[in-house]
Amino acid sequence: MIDLTVVKIGGNVIDNPEELNEFLDAFSNLSGKIVLVHGGGKLASDLSGKLGVKTKMIDGRRITDAENLKLVSMVFAGLINKNIVAALQARGVNALGLCGADLDLIRAEKRPVDEVDYGFVGDITNVNTLALCKQIECNSVLAIAPITHDGQGQLLNTNADTVATEVAVALSRFYKVKLIYSFEKLGVLMSAEDESSVIPVLSKEKCSDMVTAGKINTGMLPKTQNAFYALAKGVEEVYIGNFVSMEKHQSSGTQVINS
Amino acid sequence: MIDLTVVKIGGNVIDNPEELNEFLDAFSNLSGKIVLVHGGGKLASDLSGKLGVKTKMIDGRRITDAENLKLVSMVFAGLINKNIVAALQARGVNALGLCGADLDLIRAEKRPVDEVDYGFVGDITNVNTLALCKQIECNSVLAIAPITHDGQGQLLNTNADTVATEVAVALSRFYKVKLIYSFEKLGVLMSAEDESSVIPVLSKEKCSDMVTAGKINTGMLPKTQNAFYALAKGVEEVYIGNFVSMEKHQSSGTQVINS
Repeated sequence: MIDLTVVKIGGNVIDNPEELNEFLDAFSNLSGKIVLVHGGGKLASDLSGKLGVKTKMIDGRRITDAENLKLVSMVFAGLINKNIVAALQARGVNALGLCGADLDLIRAEKRPVDEVDYGFVGDITNVNTLALCKQIECNSVLAIAPITHDGQGQLLNTNADTVATEVAVALSRFYKVKLIYSFEKLGVLMSAEDESSVIPVLSKEKCSDMVTAGKINTGMLPKTQNAFYALAKGVEEVYIGNFVSMEKHQSSGTQVINS
Repeated sequence: MIDLTVVKIGGNVIDNPEELNEFLDAFSNLSGKIVLVHGGGKLASDLSGKLGVKTKMIDGRRITDAENLKLVSMVFAGLINKNIVAALQARGVNALGLCGADLDLIRAEKRPVDEVDYGFVGDITNVNTLALCKQIECNSVLAIAPITHDGQGQLLNTNADTVATEVAVALSRFYKVKLIYSFEKLGVLMSAEDESSVIPVLSKEKCSDMVTAGKINTGMLPKTQNAFYALAKGVEEVYIGNFVSMEKHQSSGTQVINS
């Protein structure tokens, strides 16, 4: 099978023009098939502040009312996505910016209201693998914004880590997929305060020990859960780390392994 | 050559949910190859008002400073584009939302500052016809937002009529293209106040007579200029009218002819 890399970047990179440029430089040096999934960051929150739209978060997940949905659709699928695409084009990368509604790529259902009403948040029900593959085989580098749709005309806001995970899983049917959750730290840290305490290899057992010891924080927990899920579903390799440092061979990040 | 229809819709349709639905119903009934180009409308102005970003217009063209560029990138390429795509998907249409930066589809150069500084406004220099055709041949219905790029990473704001025109011209190398500029009126009117005075066929001569008589207003003038340019450059048929009425056979719009 052909290699394919899925890279997920979050707000920390997007919010900082210098870091974003550094990331895009490193990213455009990748060879082979590539998919980028980007999150949002402060831009949406800043704008919501200016517009008087309140941002509510529960467990690191944004509560998305109608006004917030408009906002994230604009900022994620418009402003951020198209600026990333233009910046990649400037680096000679044939980028194509997409959201889950395009080509019916990622369908989701509005999360049922249980104890919490997350609003217009979508849980992924289907990834259109063939449509994704067709674009990838046309040598396009896909830049995916974490906006999905329900097939009935409703856009939905979906967690970007989850989008990256499900896209990686879907593509692992046809490619040997390497999935990198890139974030500001060099990897999963043994001790949150010590940047040099990166765990090189994180097994399920080790992770569960760390959870018990309270060493995996609420931001990292869903990331590790996504990582183990991806591996269980056929993704070949999963890393949590800093993409730029990894590309510069300054660090190897944390490889998550399913054992 | 295979038939292809390029439909351009403007703000009047986008601003009104009912009209937009009616348009999308009619649009999704079209058979064959289709490209939709949409403008912006009041959404961007409304938002700019809320954000305290000033909108300046000269000759019906928006002056685009850095803040306005952010705004139109968000609203046109994000909010409007993705909602149209989701709405088309709900109607069983395999829509793909794009802007000019995607796949390097539409390059532009920042308009040189002469008497007026239009800001981040892009004049189209190249349409990537092959990339467009590839997507069209994959049976995607393209929905194009009028945001272009300069190839150096800069997004630019381009008039939607111009985008529709240049896309239609580019595609006329490979398809028999019908171009429809859809707007709120039933066609070019002989008398602005009389909705029933639609001119069925508008020749160059007739148009120039009307311009001389002051009967073509400043909003219509660039549309007719675009229409004649499109015909001169190989587009097969050009109409100015109301797409929904035309599809319902309630009116035929104004056919612009190059003679």
